[in-house]
Amino acid sequence: MTSQNLKRRRGTEVFGEVALAVHGGAGALTRGAISAEREQEYLQHLESALRAGFVLLKRGKRSLDAVEAAVLYLEDCPLFNAGHGSVFTADGTFELDAAIMDGRTRRAGAVAAVSIVRNPISAARAVMQDTKHVMLTGAGAELVAAEAGVQIVNPSYFFTEQRRKQWEELGHDKQMSGLSPAATMCEPIDRKFGTVGAVARDRRGNLAAATSTGGTMGKRAGRVGDSPIIGAGTYADNATCAVSTTGHGESFMRTVAAYDVSALMKYRRMGLARAASQVVQVSLESVQGQGGLIAIDAAGNCALPFNTPGMLRGSITTDGEVYTAIYR
Amino acid sequence: MTSQNLKRRRGTEVFGEVALAVHGGAGALTRGAISAEREQEYLQHLESALRAGFVLLKRGKRSLDAVEAAVLYLEDCPLFNAGHGSVFTADGTFELDAAIMDGRTRRAGAVAAVSIVRNPISAARAVMQDTKHVMLTGAGAELVAAEAGVQIVNPSYFFTEQRRKQWEELGHDKQMSGLSPAATMCEPIDRKFGTVGAVARDRRGNLAAATSTGGTMGKRAGRVGDSPIIGAGTYADNATCAVSTTGHGESFMRTVAAYDVSALMKYRRMGLARAASQVVQVSLESVQGQGGLIAIDAAGNCALPFNTPGMLRGSITTDGEVYTAIYR
Repeated sequence: MTSQNLKRRRGTEVFGEVALAVHGGAGALTRGAISAEREQEYLQHLESALRAGFVLLKRGKRSLDAVEAAVLYLEDCPLFNAGHGSVFTADGTFELDAAIMDGRTRRAGAVAAVSIVRNPISAARAVMQDTKHVMLTGAGAELVAAEAGVQIVNPSYFFTEQRRKQWEELGHDKQMSGLSPAATMCEPIDRKFGTVGAVARDRRGNLAAATSTGGTMGKRAGRVGDSPIIGAGTYADNATCAVSTTGHGESFMRTVAAYDVSALMKYRRMGLARAASQVVQVSLESVQGQGGLIAIDAAGNCALPFNTPGMLRGSITTDGEVYTAIYR
Repeated sequence: MTSQNLKRRRGTEVFGEVALAVHGGAGALTRGAISAEREQEYLQHLESALRAGFVLLKRGKRSLDAVEAAVLYLEDCPLFNAGHGSVFTADGTFELDAAIMDGRTRRAGAVAAVSIVRNPISAARAVMQDTKHVMLTGAGAELVAAEAGVQIVNPSYFFTEQRRKQWEELGHDKQMSGLSPAATMCEPIDRKFGTVGAVARDRRGNLAAATSTGGTMGKRAGRVGDSPIIGAGTYADNATCAVSTTGHGESFMRTVAAYDVSALMKYRRMGLARAASQVVQVSLESVQGQGGLIAIDAAGNCALPFNTPGMLRGSITTDGEVYTAIYR
């Protein structure tokens, strides 16, 4: 569990200072499981995602803009299981999910099972801003995205050779089987728990959270995980915190994990680090859940707890200092 | 707000006694808005739904069986906006959502946007029991339901003349407009906030919750409300309570309302009635949300709070005593 006080506090509130954290998935990432070269690539892209959001925060933009920009960067990067580079469903198709939430208004937008929207996180924002709804699925979500000017692409845009290989290793090119034990051993991070997310605090103290995913490699068509579920994978409230999760989605759904961090702060008066840690170490483990989360509070403190061997994660503080890490 | 202690307590635990509550939607149900005849129909069907679940509880069946049976009855009844009698989408189609949760294991199942499954609540149960997932949408959910032996029907099964008239009044037969002010004035309960749900406590003290809906009349294709979202519209945990909500779905999603009742009990040590009331009167109203919920705790206490003029609701206690009501 990592927790950092990223701010010099002025009294209990910090004005004008900004902070942002991102994740790129959690899983059985033990040292040596991936090459040193790939490690460096992950860390560099996490830093670039942080800077993509940070530059907006520094310019006085809203936390909502910053988390969208950071997630957009990670969606466009083929290394992460979101947007370009998403995993395949059992049928060999793509079904992407995303959600965004504004801590100031507690308005939220989410899309599930979209397959022709280049950046699902922007589609989620369009649902929040342009409709009276919180969640739209499939073609309904794609229509709102197109109307909002979000780029529509051929599903082949999401294709990467790396994911095709993983899908074939799972035997999905030959049969619609479950995961074979051998196949689940290699690169489990991408296959099982790849998701990207960001949380931010802007100059005005507004919080926001965003999450995007290609889902689970070889998932059943129509499966929706925690990422687009407000309260499970994504949550933001200025009064407490903003949270984005990654891991075994069903466990986060059953424990309502993202909102649970907020509930512990609000009802038990826990600090961010303790609340975030309790959700991962106690609530999530009570259902044998694996994964982690990133969280930020109104003072700009970040917590990045996880119970897997590794979680791709990073944070950036108001002075531009970057922290990125993979392992414990 | 109605709260009833339905049990004689033996110490702090009650063994062997059972309880069940149901709802059939909440809305601008003022006295005189519906005919006395229709009022009686509603009350009779609520009682029949209670008895459908109660007979199973009395036979020693699980709370999960009881809530499924009660919701199944309401789905089959054309008066309620779930299953047969569901409202139309803007496109004139049917998209049904449902969720079920087992408080003993906190396992859960949900389906969204299904259109050929006669009883969406049974499809949700199949997702919970037959897959590793919590939520499936569209064809993916329908496939699981069919494999589990849930009856598949032509979408015309859901059609009722009453709903077609409402849909036409909204101008959807001529244009895909939003709700016209005049059209929203009449029978707002069915149109806006119709949803059915049940919560139960069985002999062993296990809790369960179930919710099912046709959604909002004239909704955008792909819109998912709170009913199938674990934590928002449906939640159950033996340690606290089981909850099913009805009302303006987006508000329940943004406030994670069903889980919030549980969080207040767990973290603030509130009793069921106070926690349920606070969620409706404070949390929900903080986002101008309208609706209500039914909740039950491990001792079999029920709470049925709402902030709309009316909520179709009822409860039954271990001695078979039935309570049903519409207005405040």
